[in-house]
Amino acid sequence: METHDGPPYDAELMAAVTELGDALRGLVDASVRTAVPAEDLRAAAAGARELTTRLAAAQRPAGQLSPLDDVPAFRRVYSPVSGVGSALAPPVVLREADGAVVGEATFGLAYEGPPGFLHGGMTGLVMDQVLGAAAIHAGLWGMTVRLEVDYRGPIPLDTRVVLNGRVTEAAGRKTVVTGSIALASDPDRALIEARGVFVTPRAEQMASYFSTVTDASGRPSPPGRPTDATAPLPADRP
Amino acid sequence: METHDGPPYDAELMAAVTELGDALRGLVDASVRTAVPAEDLRAAAAGARELTTRLAAAQRPAGQLSPLDDVPAFRRVYSPVSGVGSALAPPVVLREADGAVVGEATFGLAYEGPPGFLHGGMTGLVMDQVLGAAAIHAGLWGMTVRLEVDYRGPIPLDTRVVLNGRVTEAAGRKTVVTGSIALASDPDRALIEARGVFVTPRAEQMASYFSTVTDASGRPSPPGRPTDATAPLPADRP
Repeated sequence: METHDGPPYDAELMAAVTELGDALRGLVDASVRTAVPAEDLRAAAAGARELTTRLAAAQRPAGQLSPLDDVPAFRRVYSPVSGVGSALAPPVVLREADGAVVGEATFGLAYEGPPGFLHGGMTGLVMDQVLGAAAIHAGLWGMTVRLEVDYRGPIPLDTRVVLNGRVTEAAGRKTVVTGSIALASDPDRALIEARGVFVTPRAEQMASYFSTVTDASGRPSPPGRPTDATAPLPADRP
Repeated sequence: METHDGPPYDAELMAAVTELGDALRGLVDASVRTAVPAEDLRAAAAGARELTTRLAAAQRPAGQLSPLDDVPAFRRVYSPVSGVGSALAPPVVLREADGAVVGEATFGLAYEGPPGFLHGGMTGLVMDQVLGAAAIHAGLWGMTVRLEVDYRGPIPLDTRVVLNGRVTEAAGRKTVVTGSIALASDPDRALIEARGVFVTPRAEQMASYFSTVTDASGRPSPPGRPTDATAPLPADRP
């Protein structure tokens, strides 16, 4: 375990959650590309419901985080953008680089908007995560209060893209972060430019939003400004 | 078949795609709430890989739409926001209302950002779709060129929200749409306000972006300004 990942976790459980996330992402992809007949789709639906029943045999209580999560360290295995266990996540992989956060992703057919291209709203989803991670990396966690995205060109599916985010302004509880997305094959031409404003909630807001959140052992576990632990991988990690 | 849904489609296939979409959304939800041990997660992963193999037995070619899609009518069964067949979609249900588009959605744990609340970026994803649908409803299809989202308060999970979008400006190829999200229980207090700018690509851009897109029969099928066919349900549909 390295410091940036937060406290130690059950490595076997992490491996299993990651394996299931991978398998579900594959299933989601197959479900939008498939051309099998209706009866095979219905059989697959029955199979999916069976798996659902098996997974529902034990559930964590509402408000209790996964035992793999560490909110102060921003480790969230079910993040819909970067979570290793999330079937919704592309997933986006982020790492630290020279005072900023950089990342990469490849969007499959499940993320399509206009035919052949990424859904415009997926760009907003991804950039919110990238910009938020840059704020966290700078020790400035906050909740999004404004997001602006400019679209210079459409992002093709099944094509590797590079992402980045960097804090450009920080004053009190407010942090401004800018970032972009470009094709990995043409990294200097931004197809997307984004700007996010994040604000750390006041103590009374924090209490009102997060007072019932606990970690898996039942201890209160609100998000907050991190110490030395941030979600992006260090620059020297593959 | 009603006009707004576009040309007729295979109702049995639509029912099967919808059933699989429902089943996968249930599976995604179960996968983030589960507390079963690692070996059960691995067994579920194996089950998901089996389903993937079955669905991959036949695939539509790259660039070929689902036979259920009708791009001129904006019927997209795998939309990651509103698609009945998409495991990623909440799904958001949109309908026409008094010159605007209104909708509703409930976001489960799979869409979590800060503990207990919707991921800030999911808001951008959803609003892009709502604003784009309002443009389409007004006969003004375009691709997103700018999206602005203001966050007045966090959106709680597992809580019904109402959405709306309305064209506020249209000139030439450019359309400006504004919209909001509020709790269904407090619909006049917007938690999210958004503004989108959409531009219909020039003919040469359309050709460069979409010339290889075909419908399931192989005919070219680019998106474009709709006639009387729009994606939202009419106001009198339940």
